Amino acid sequence: MSQKDKTTIYDISRKLNISAATVSRALNNSNRVSTKTRDLVLKTAKELNYQQNSLAVALKSGRTFNVGVVVPLINRAFFASVIRGIEEELEPKGYHVIICQTHEDADKEARQLQALLNTNIDGVFISVSKTTEDLKHLEAVLQAKTPLIFFDRKKDLKGVSAVSIDDFQGAYDAVSHLIEQGYSKIVHLGGDRKLNIYEDRYRGYIAALEAHGLSTQNLFTLQMSSTIESGIEAVNQLYDSKTDFDAIFCASDYIALGCVQELRSRGIQIPQEVGVVGFSNEPFTSHLEHPLSTVGQTPVLMGKMAAQVFLEQINAGKDSEPLEKNVVLKPELFTRSTSLKKGTV
Amino acid sequence: MSQKDKTTIYDISRKLNISAATVSRALNNSNRVSTKTRDLVLKTAKELNYQQNSLAVALKSGRTFNVGVVVPLINRAFFASVIRGIEEELEPKGYHVIICQTHEDADKEARQLQALLNTNIDGVFISVSKTTEDLKHLEAVLQAKTPLIFFDRKKDLKGVSAVSIDDFQGAYDAVSHLIEQGYSKIVHLGGDRKLNIYEDRYRGYIAALEAHGLSTQNLFTLQMSSTIESGIEAVNQLYDSKTDFDAIFCASDYIALGCVQELRSRGIQIPQEVGVVGFSNEPFTSHLEHPLSTVGQTPVLMGKMAAQVFLEQINAGKDSEPLEKNVVLKPELFTRSTSLKKGTV
Repeated sequence: MSQKDKTTIYDISRKLNISAATVSRALNNSNRVSTKTRDLVLKTAKELNYQQNSLAVALKSGRTFNVGVVVPLINRAFFASVIRGIEEELEPKGYHVIICQTHEDADKEARQLQALLNTNIDGVFISVSKTTEDLKHLEAVLQAKTPLIFFDRKKDLKGVSAVSIDDFQGAYDAVSHLIEQGYSKIVHLGGDRKLNIYEDRYRGYIAALEAHGLSTQNLFTLQMSSTIESGIEAVNQLYDSKTDFDAIFCASDYIALGCVQELRSRGIQIPQEVGVVGFSNEPFTSHLEHPLSTVGQTPVLMGKMAAQVFLEQINAGKDSEPLEKNVVLKPELFTRSTSLKKGTV
Repeated sequence: MSQKDKTTIYDISRKLNISAATVSRALNNSNRVSTKTRDLVLKTAKELNYQQNSLAVALKSGRTFNVGVVVPLINRAFFASVIRGIEEELEPKGYHVIICQTHEDADKEARQLQALLNTNIDGVFISVSKTTEDLKHLEAVLQAKTPLIFFDRKKDLKGVSAVSIDDFQGAYDAVSHLIEQGYSKIVHLGGDRKLNIYEDRYRGYIAALEAHGLSTQNLFTLQMSSTIESGIEAVNQLYDSKTDFDAIFCASDYIALGCVQELRSRGIQIPQEVGVVGFSNEPFTSHLEHPLSTVGQTPVLMGKMAAQVFLEQINAGKDSEPLEKNVVLKPELFTRSTSLKKGTV
């Protein structure tokens, strides 16, 4: 097909018998057209093989239809699934999702955000790194009037919406489950509590112990990085310190996997002698010989919700006040063989 | 620090007693300065907390210092590790790495590439999707005079460099290992052979059988997607068709994991009755109760090599002929419990 034969918005307008301006607005996701009209225009555009010139659109609308997603690590199934959720929601609307990882490094996070802003993205989704304390780079996004949405790991920042799960509830449910299975000496291997999610999981753990009348004095709890090696080392510490325990609630599946490996290599029976619960429902947890009990975070739904908040902000217009929504999703407990002392519940 | 107090290239130039032009060239990774000088300038710039104005740099040099990496799926450890290799090589040189995933969809791949080109990236690294046949979108990158580098999954395209492992050799080594362990009826569960990597793994399998004097007549081989479910289904097919086999060489760790799960649920002893080898060395393979034998693809090294080829192209200048390097890395066989019929080798 030559340049001249290309489908234009006028072809779509003729076919649907609506004005070219309406077609243009529909193709640019304007909130001045009804959803029904927009869907019809998009369907017809696809049938006629209409190719939007993205640069022209960007110049005209001030939009690039690129959004950035910034995550600590792309190789964690949780983050990959949130990204899939964002893509599933935004790609049918013509957006492209570009991804950056920070490797938990606050400086890198700042540079990545600046690089994204330089490409004139339409919005940023971020789950902040463990080391992020200074918020200047996040404020810069707001100053550029670019919508910013936190997911999972958030910071307290005015004018920013956030989508997360109820980490307190997730931990509360996991620890209550352990208690109901007959465990009573439950230790906690957590993450860095400077991050709200790990603080909330810690509080949920404490609250569940209290609600079931268990002592919260002299508890064995540690903060560590989310790795298999940390879990192995923590189990060694538990035995070296002669701690009396019968269950481990971990704030991460990687820590939990390290625990399971070290307990088994010491000949400890799981779940009879020691129960283990992780957090995140990483796919490997169900592939293990002894599938791991864990808390699911509905990551695809989290991504979809974050995308919806972004669209709401975009549709409100560039000059409207930033939305400040706080969407909290319900966690989902997966009880598998590492915690079922009494058998299937 | 106010705007006026900001470190400039003149501060660096004074400190090092070299010209501001040299500092500028060094900061812009020009090949007209020695590596030693460049490293010294970068070190001093860091010490003085020098902030380059990326947009100004982009306008002046025509470069954005953003590169794009396009992969089928970010949640495969292999791709995530290649990306880490690219980042490790390019970030110290001031580049930002932005990532897109295609979900194995050729149309999405074309749209992602166009979106990346619209952001004026300095280069594209790509591992093509399974469904990519038309190469127009890749040719468009070359027409934009943007360096394009294939890694792992490549296409035959003039003026494009590629970094891959020797998939033929990887398969050959894996199958030879099975034969040396005493297996002789080896079936192959492969990927779609339209992709060069799966064709090469298939050929390596056949060559190893021939080299060891085993018949290559009436072999049971299948092409399937790289999922656990495909592996389970394939084992069911093997038994349904009453195929006589004692080992399975899989072109993917996910297929291999499905095989192991289904064989075990049928009560088959691994490795005594059936041996299994996968491909990719995904991290879960070593966490399994019976760690999986597999072929490692040195993904971090692959990313680093791809980045080096990119830098070579950049340093040659925008108007130089595109390089056409073909870097082939050596695969690494990991022999673990699923294939060690005779015990540790």
